[in-house]
Amino acid sequence: MSFTVYKGSKDGSIVQSSSKKPTLKRDQVLVKVTHSGVCYTDVHYKAADMVLGHEGVGHVEEVGPDVHSLKKGDRVGWGYEHDCCGRCNHCLSGWETFCPDRKMYGHADLDQGSFASHAVWREAFLFRIPDALDNESAAPLMCGGSTVFNAMVVAGVKSTDTVGIVGIGGLGHLAIQFANKMGCHVVVFSGTDSKREEAMQLGAHEFHATKGATELKVQHKLSHLIVSTSALPDWKLYLDVLDSRATISPLTVSDKPFTFPHTALVVRGLRVQGGIVGSRQVHRDMLDFAAFHGIKPMVVRYPMTAEGIKDCLRTLEEGKMRYRGVLAV
Amino acid sequence: MSFTVYKGSKDGSIVQSSSKKPTLKRDQVLVKVTHSGVCYTDVHYKAADMVLGHEGVGHVEEVGPDVHSLKKGDRVGWGYEHDCCGRCNHCLSGWETFCPDRKMYGHADLDQGSFASHAVWREAFLFRIPDALDNESAAPLMCGGSTVFNAMVVAGVKSTDTVGIVGIGGLGHLAIQFANKMGCHVVVFSGTDSKREEAMQLGAHEFHATKGATELKVQHKLSHLIVSTSALPDWKLYLDVLDSRATISPLTVSDKPFTFPHTALVVRGLRVQGGIVGSRQVHRDMLDFAAFHGIKPMVVRYPMTAEGIKDCLRTLEEGKMRYRGVLAV
Repeated sequence: MSFTVYKGSKDGSIVQSSSKKPTLKRDQVLVKVTHSGVCYTDVHYKAADMVLGHEGVGHVEEVGPDVHSLKKGDRVGWGYEHDCCGRCNHCLSGWETFCPDRKMYGHADLDQGSFASHAVWREAFLFRIPDALDNESAAPLMCGGSTVFNAMVVAGVKSTDTVGIVGIGGLGHLAIQFANKMGCHVVVFSGTDSKREEAMQLGAHEFHATKGATELKVQHKLSHLIVSTSALPDWKLYLDVLDSRATISPLTVSDKPFTFPHTALVVRGLRVQGGIVGSRQVHRDMLDFAAFHGIKPMVVRYPMTAEGIKDCLRTLEEGKMRYRGVLAV
Repeated sequence: MSFTVYKGSKDGSIVQSSSKKPTLKRDQVLVKVTHSGVCYTDVHYKAADMVLGHEGVGHVEEVGPDVHSLKKGDRVGWGYEHDCCGRCNHCLSGWETFCPDRKMYGHADLDQGSFASHAVWREAFLFRIPDALDNESAAPLMCGGSTVFNAMVVAGVKSTDTVGIVGIGGLGHLAIQFANKMGCHVVVFSGTDSKREEAMQLGAHEFHATKGATELKVQHKLSHLIVSTSALPDWKLYLDVLDSRATISPLTVSDKPFTFPHTALVVRGLRVQGGIVGSRQVHRDMLDFAAFHGIKPMVVRYPMTAEGIKDCLRTLEEGKMRYRGVLAV
């Protein structure tokens, strides 16, 4: 049996190809993909000779000899991390996302991905989809949802905190919902007013347009600031709305240095916290929390074809996605 | 009664002056100063018309009507914070150092300081000196010791962690001792080898000279990095010796921006933690910990005179202090 995959290529065009299904070894699982979320990281890799996609959801079609808990028909998904060593200090303390031998999207298993009809994946890195979550809604949680939820976990967000969210996109629109359902006062910052209504519907309690603003005023100073804009913001604009001891979680992918007013950082006891996707237990908690509270991404559906992928990536690059593209088989 | 104080002045010279002892109100205490540590912040304020000094130690000479637990003769000290509101979220959660109405050295009570024969201070902001600590040793703990100990508390240093300390000065040489007695593997970085032996005697397990180095190699990757150099270091040099999820505590006073490699910050889950002196309970814990473990600063003694202060500040400005100047009455 062979299955269809969609790969990047040198000129950035999407190429349909096929993979031969290997004989499943150890805890490998063959997943029939039904949906894949599309993340900006996929744009970054579109010129690489690899199968794209890392927000895969589908159902189990076949299991390897050491698979313990999954069986044919189970609904599962996977994200950015493929594997880890299982032996280092990070793995053994529930932080396998920082294992020095971690295998991540773009650097391992380049013949497998979620822009495909099928993928072969380790059971250990597959997540069961809770009954209350449909496959299409689950897909964007596999990386985007996991990343913002993890940022809140690592920052130690408490229900009585005020959480600021900068940027409403694939990550930000999920962060609003998570923070709201955690019980937090949610303050959203976006360039213009164009997303104000949607932000309030998603669960924001305050909305502030930042374009051209020289000063921001909030009802409560922020205990946390989750930043998911495509470029790092002007931090000076946010200093006055941050409470002392606030955490700042910059999730932005940027090759520019992180530059912050030093005196404010020190004297006000601020904390800048780096982070990526959640480890597996955080990821499970995130899925359960989303299912329990009915948290769902707002998606734009595209067909799982070379053309569909191309359209979706283009919309993403143009900054027009509201808010997460999902490819459906 | 009047008492002697030493003030800064416009041209940066130290001026002897006198203050009239006020009638003690509420929980005010008259402290007879025996020693004062000298901190680089005192250099920053030497051109200000204010009584200098914020690492005061002495004994109680007289108490106001609402003083509860201190009596004449008790040994006490004080540090950077003079007062707080007692009502805000920071005060009520043990973080009064971040009270928006905090009163701090350089900004409040400019007629009181520890470069003096006496000072009037609130009981609520005085610390008892444990029996096992002499006054001279206690003085540098009031700001320098409190700041590095607090950095370790806020960073969540555990005894099984590896703690890196950059810079051996008033703060760094105390950080080495604290980290050693906390049970940590202690890795010290200093410009040259000149302080190697002293660092090892203070409790370092590894010492690395950084001047001209393009690469550092440590036995164990660092869980924490406490930075107390007078200028911020080249962070790139330290990236390879930091474990993922490491905390970085920049205690440096600098008006330059904090600039750090952004991708490493995010992808490796690093945490940059600002901070100042400890809150009162952390400060008490610090004093008890120092007393219990025999942690003492290495001090250079100067007389509490205008000339003595001038000499001490000059040595500090020349970067030649090993490791904390203390003025003795």
